[in-house]
Amino acid sequence: MRVLIVHAHHEPTSFNTALLTTARETLAAAGHELRVSDLYAMGFQPVSDRRNFRTVANAERLDQQAEERLAAASGGFADDVAAEIEKLLWCDHLIFQFPIWWLGLPAILKGWVDRVFALGVAYGGGRWFDGGALAGRRAMLSVTVGGTAEVYSDIGVYGPAEDILFPIHRGIFGFTGFQVIEPFVVYGPGRMDPTTRAGVLAAYREKLLGLERAAVLPMPKVADYERLVLKPGLRPAAP
Amino acid sequence: MRVLIVHAHHEPTSFNTALLTTARETLAAAGHELRVSDLYAMGFQPVSDRRNFRTVANAERLDQQAEERLAAASGGFADDVAAEIEKLLWCDHLIFQFPIWWLGLPAILKGWVDRVFALGVAYGGGRWFDGGALAGRRAMLSVTVGGTAEVYSDIGVYGPAEDILFPIHRGIFGFTGFQVIEPFVVYGPGRMDPTTRAGVLAAYREKLLGLERAAVLPMPKVADYERLVLKPGLRPAAP
Repeated sequence: MRVLIVHAHHEPTSFNTALLTTARETLAAAGHELRVSDLYAMGFQPVSDRRNFRTVANAERLDQQAEERLAAASGGFADDVAAEIEKLLWCDHLIFQFPIWWLGLPAILKGWVDRVFALGVAYGGGRWFDGGALAGRRAMLSVTVGGTAEVYSDIGVYGPAEDILFPIHRGIFGFTGFQVIEPFVVYGPGRMDPTTRAGVLAAYREKLLGLERAAVLPMPKVADYERLVLKPGLRPAAP
Repeated sequence: MRVLIVHAHHEPTSFNTALLTTARETLAAAGHELRVSDLYAMGFQPVSDRRNFRTVANAERLDQQAEERLAAASGGFADDVAAEIEKLLWCDHLIFQFPIWWLGLPAILKGWVDRVFALGVAYGGGRWFDGGALAGRRAMLSVTVGGTAEVYSDIGVYGPAEDILFPIHRGIFGFTGFQVIEPFVVYGPGRMDPTTRAGVLAAYREKLLGLERAAVLPMPKVADYERLVLKPGLRPAAP
């Protein structure tokens, strides 16, 4: 496997970093190739604007997709974006390692998606889902949350974690063609005793070693849809 | 009304900016007070880390919540964060104006939340939802999406827009105490003819003038929950 982990935590003693370290050790021992984009350590700039590009399609009006189309066709991405695109296209497994903040991606990681998943690179020309530009690859979220598992269930204030992660699974990974592996979710790592913590890291090691055959989430199939809308008489993919 | 609009678009000729301009004109004409955080124009830095603070609770290990607790108690936020906190606490209506990117907030706006909605300011001490630190205020999303309304429905690849916006409504606004007004969603503004465009702006004007009595989304009530989990025998708030 060629694995890219995009890591979004600023603290080396965090549980997120422990999960990253587990992945480094596990994948190396198993003979897989690993690259890591450690966004805080890199000082990654996450605001998507003209700084994404060296080329200019229209100097008067910033149409991000038009600029992305030109940059993709002419090698016009800025160096920091181009470096991340190269890693994205290199990998066959993509992992996002992050703490869920406000039920979503930390800004530094959301901006990685906003800037790197460009038109002409990650989508475009009517290619999406199983016909997507990044089809043939697999992706997984490895996340920590502060609350208990019950808080992210039918009886918790936030409802099931899968519903919270749906926009990322469906809208970022699925849309661009990734098969989406069931997420690895760690609840309340700050309150864990050492034994529980070691058990979670061992479970993550097993998950990593099984990535190639891990269960994936249901996704729409392009053949069932016309312009992203279900053809008459068909049933949608389960959420 | 005292309205704060947090605006996240870089292009002055965009439909998002037209919606912002409509809000400026409408609210001023109706005698309301308006402040705007135009994040791209301000060059807002959205990465949450030690740059949020002037104070230091622990120089060895960055625990964001511990640093936020100290900063909130001692006036220790960095100038850019403190300025936004002052606006947040000033307003009684908060509007996020943004294009949905990858089914979520643009990074520059997600980072505004990550940095400004600090412990001790927007939550903490077991205060949440109708007992939340920001209770008594109302919030609304005003968003554009590229696809058609059908793409964000039961027969579209993304499912209903309300489900996509749920993490923002429930996890950011509801959790901190805001009553959440039904969102204003504009589908495919790039493909609109001038008449349709004018009609949408007129509808937004009506929505703005009715903010104080607009319908709000169902939210959990603190009395029904214990540590964010529903008490036995009760039913959860509709999503």
